[in-house]
Amino acid sequence: MAHLLSTSYTLKLSPSRNSSFVHLNQGLTKFSSFLTLKSSNFPSKRLVQPGQFPERSCIVCATTLSLNHEAKARPGAGSNEVHNDASKPKRVMVIGGDGYCGWATALHLSNKNYKVAIVDNLVRRLFDHQLGIDSLTPIASIHSRVRRWKSLTGKTIELYIGDICDFEFLAETFKSFEPDAVVHFGEQRSAPYSMIDRSRAVFTQQNNVIGTLNVLFAIKEFSKECHLVKLGTMGEYGTPNIDIEEGYITITHNGRTDTLPYPKQASSFYHLSKVHDSHNIAFTCKAWGIRATDLNQGVVYGLRTDETEMHEELHNRFDYDGIFGTALNRFCVQAAVGHPLTVYGKGGQTRGYLDIRDTVQCVELAIANPAQPGEFRVFNQFTEQFSVRELAALVTRAGEKLGLKVETASVPNPRVEAEEHYYNAKHTKLVELGLNPHLLSDSLLDSLLNFAIEYKDRVDKKQIMPNVSWRKIGVKPRTIVA
Amino acid sequence: MAHLLSTSYTLKLSPSRNSSFVHLNQGLTKFSSFLTLKSSNFPSKRLVQPGQFPERSCIVCATTLSLNHEAKARPGAGSNEVHNDASKPKRVMVIGGDGYCGWATALHLSNKNYKVAIVDNLVRRLFDHQLGIDSLTPIASIHSRVRRWKSLTGKTIELYIGDICDFEFLAETFKSFEPDAVVHFGEQRSAPYSMIDRSRAVFTQQNNVIGTLNVLFAIKEFSKECHLVKLGTMGEYGTPNIDIEEGYITITHNGRTDTLPYPKQASSFYHLSKVHDSHNIAFTCKAWGIRATDLNQGVVYGLRTDETEMHEELHNRFDYDGIFGTALNRFCVQAAVGHPLTVYGKGGQTRGYLDIRDTVQCVELAIANPAQPGEFRVFNQFTEQFSVRELAALVTRAGEKLGLKVETASVPNPRVEAEEHYYNAKHTKLVELGLNPHLLSDSLLDSLLNFAIEYKDRVDKKQIMPNVSWRKIGVKPRTIVA
Repeated sequence: MAHLLSTSYTLKLSPSRNSSFVHLNQGLTKFSSFLTLKSSNFPSKRLVQPGQFPERSCIVCATTLSLNHEAKARPGAGSNEVHNDASKPKRVMVIGGDGYCGWATALHLSNKNYKVAIVDNLVRRLFDHQLGIDSLTPIASIHSRVRRWKSLTGKTIELYIGDICDFEFLAETFKSFEPDAVVHFGEQRSAPYSMIDRSRAVFTQQNNVIGTLNVLFAIKEFSKECHLVKLGTMGEYGTPNIDIEEGYITITHNGRTDTLPYPKQASSFYHLSKVHDSHNIAFTCKAWGIRATDLNQGVVYGLRTDETEMHEELHNRFDYDGIFGTALNRFCVQAAVGHPLTVYGKGGQTRGYLDIRDTVQCVELAIANPAQPGEFRVFNQFTEQFSVRELAALVTRAGEKLGLKVETASVPNPRVEAEEHYYNAKHTKLVELGLNPHLLSDSLLDSLLNFAIEYKDRVDKKQIMPNVSWRKIGVKPRTIVA
Repeated sequence: MAHLLSTSYTLKLSPSRNSSFVHLNQGLTKFSSFLTLKSSNFPSKRLVQPGQFPERSCIVCATTLSLNHEAKARPGAGSNEVHNDASKPKRVMVIGGDGYCGWATALHLSNKNYKVAIVDNLVRRLFDHQLGIDSLTPIASIHSRVRRWKSLTGKTIELYIGDICDFEFLAETFKSFEPDAVVHFGEQRSAPYSMIDRSRAVFTQQNNVIGTLNVLFAIKEFSKECHLVKLGTMGEYGTPNIDIEEGYITITHNGRTDTLPYPKQASSFYHLSKVHDSHNIAFTCKAWGIRATDLNQGVVYGLRTDETEMHEELHNRFDYDGIFGTALNRFCVQAAVGHPLTVYGKGGQTRGYLDIRDTVQCVELAIANPAQPGEFRVFNQFTEQFSVRELAALVTRAGEKLGLKVETASVPNPRVEAEEHYYNAKHTKLVELGLNPHLLSDSLLDSLLNFAIEYKDRVDKKQIMPNVSWRKIGVKPRTIVA
């Protein structure tokens, strides 16, 4: 596992947190250097980088080092910020804020005048390198992203680069940033990735479960009132033959009644890791009084949000490959490059879907309306249900309108799942909080298709077909050949 | 975590498994030595230790090294063995076979003429050292235990010392032993241990979940037909206000019906780790056709089985401390030494209990009646329900009969749990397979009390009280002072 896990940076302070020397160890490359730091204006809270690198003085890529100008602009300087009831902006830590949903969410929250910090080990970018895949859209480095955001809006997003499985790192980020809410996207999020080989299956569960345990301990120890907004998945429920409720179901059995956690039937090591998280979080809410919202998200599609549109350096990633690409996004790219839409098996697999603009809206609604202390709240976060077959038909129709010749091919299903089944999942709680959905429309499909056409020269057709089998996963580390 | 995890031995074979040199690395002490091995009679299957240590030539404490005389006695030599339908004894790997339930089970199965191998990293003994606790009974080393068993019965128990979280080690044990069934006790099994500090919480989940994932992958890769008999716990269910079924519940909801996994509400990081295991195993049964039986065991009491009685070197461990001691065993020791019986809170906590003689019987029944390929079967493994208050009353009455003055003290409950609740759990499936329960009787209580009296000079009273709090668990590694 070492090649997968050794991706965090560690920061050693000696002899105390207020020391003027920082030793930066980079585990993977054995690189080490010393940065001289002066005391910040808030000595007990943060470390300030004093312009060691003049050309890019606003970014320091190191554990628990925040942005120089940000630190200077901190408490009391928020003249253009929306204040909450306590007259100060809510501080939101977005773990996994460099990823597809995380980046869009971090920008959205910053735009809404939350104080935002991104915590990320950037391992998602490493996966691309290791697997020989890439986002359809060119994406800027996280450092360029937050710098561009600052230059466009004047708003600072703090940056903590490190691995939440490293509790020492996570503790420092909590003590430094003092979050009011933590949005936790920081998990390996691909079902096929978790089914490549034993090593990646183990990595997925270890990374996701231990990372979340660490977040729970950090909240208990350092930010007891902090609201955890955790990204779960609709895939936790599987496809039961009864209606899916939001987290809980009231059962009458042998004349007695109780409301219990909804039974879980996940179908990949990734989806299972989210089930494990849910159980762990529920326990800590009960035992420690943690307040948590579990957002059981459907399949996300779309690319643009108001904020990512502002500059090309803010553009979001867009995955179409067989490992990280989700159904609708992948279909649009396939249509654009003349590749048949790959429907796995019969195509009757039905799931909940949502536009990425609704992802960011839902997360904000959860933060703005926090769970109570001790409450483990579950929202099903999607807006519409589609079968894979229906999605293929929608993309076919939209493509033909644009003059594309779109074919559909049924490929052997690499997954183990029902291909025809009952599916009716509730999703009213976020609507009750004010969610105003962006439903899948012809114009959105047109826009996605046009976008895919714009970037079609970047498509690597070899990455489109599924190449991970649920049944054939083996114990030997697998090298994916480009 | 390193201090907790670095407990396995690694064996490096160079250049191949049939090499005549073995390099034995002991991670914790930096000790290393070389053993010269000759080829065994079964070169592709096992390594034989040729009497390097004349005084104790029958035991080699090293990963994947089996017993010299055992190897010589292997296939075809089983003249006194019961044969199954395929005319050869079933080969059963007992993971965690040096522990309380595991040791009794390994002996019982060996006595019933199964071919038994114990796989254990002996970390349970390390916990005793680290926490300053000890079994009430003196226990022999695992090496002395299996040597004594051989000398008394002529039956060999193979020994594989190593950590199942180390897949390289586990793969070698599978390839060497070729199990027909795996009984998996090899997990950190104490709820209080998992609640000592963050480090041990993380260790418990990582050790248990990843170890079980590795076992599942090993079965898939090396022993596809192998039946997994996994020890779960009744604690996975929590205390719902409806009857607890055996693993599944049929739910009618909004006019539709399905049979789904019974909802889980575990209440410690240990119990949660078993919930995670159950979900992972269920998935692999469906995806890979694994055959598995999950034994959701109640609280085990008692000490003696037919086999452990045969010689003092076969005696089982008996835990009475606040971390590893379970309620009834602890009460008996408290009564014997004049310590008040420690009832946590109101004492209305009701659970399923069973005699250790029934543990070994249940495991054998599960092995003798294996699950079908792809089946994930759940049995609730207990024979009677008691509240803690009822147990205290039973021990008080039995103690007074023996002339002991027995008091009961309600101590603040260190756990987070309902202290008065409905509890009615089904447990008929093992009875249907032929379980003949040893119910808790006056004579058993007399025997347990007399036994505790016999060893009362070994009791460390400081270890009796609970010293781990579910609510106060912190992030700093905790040192338990003796």
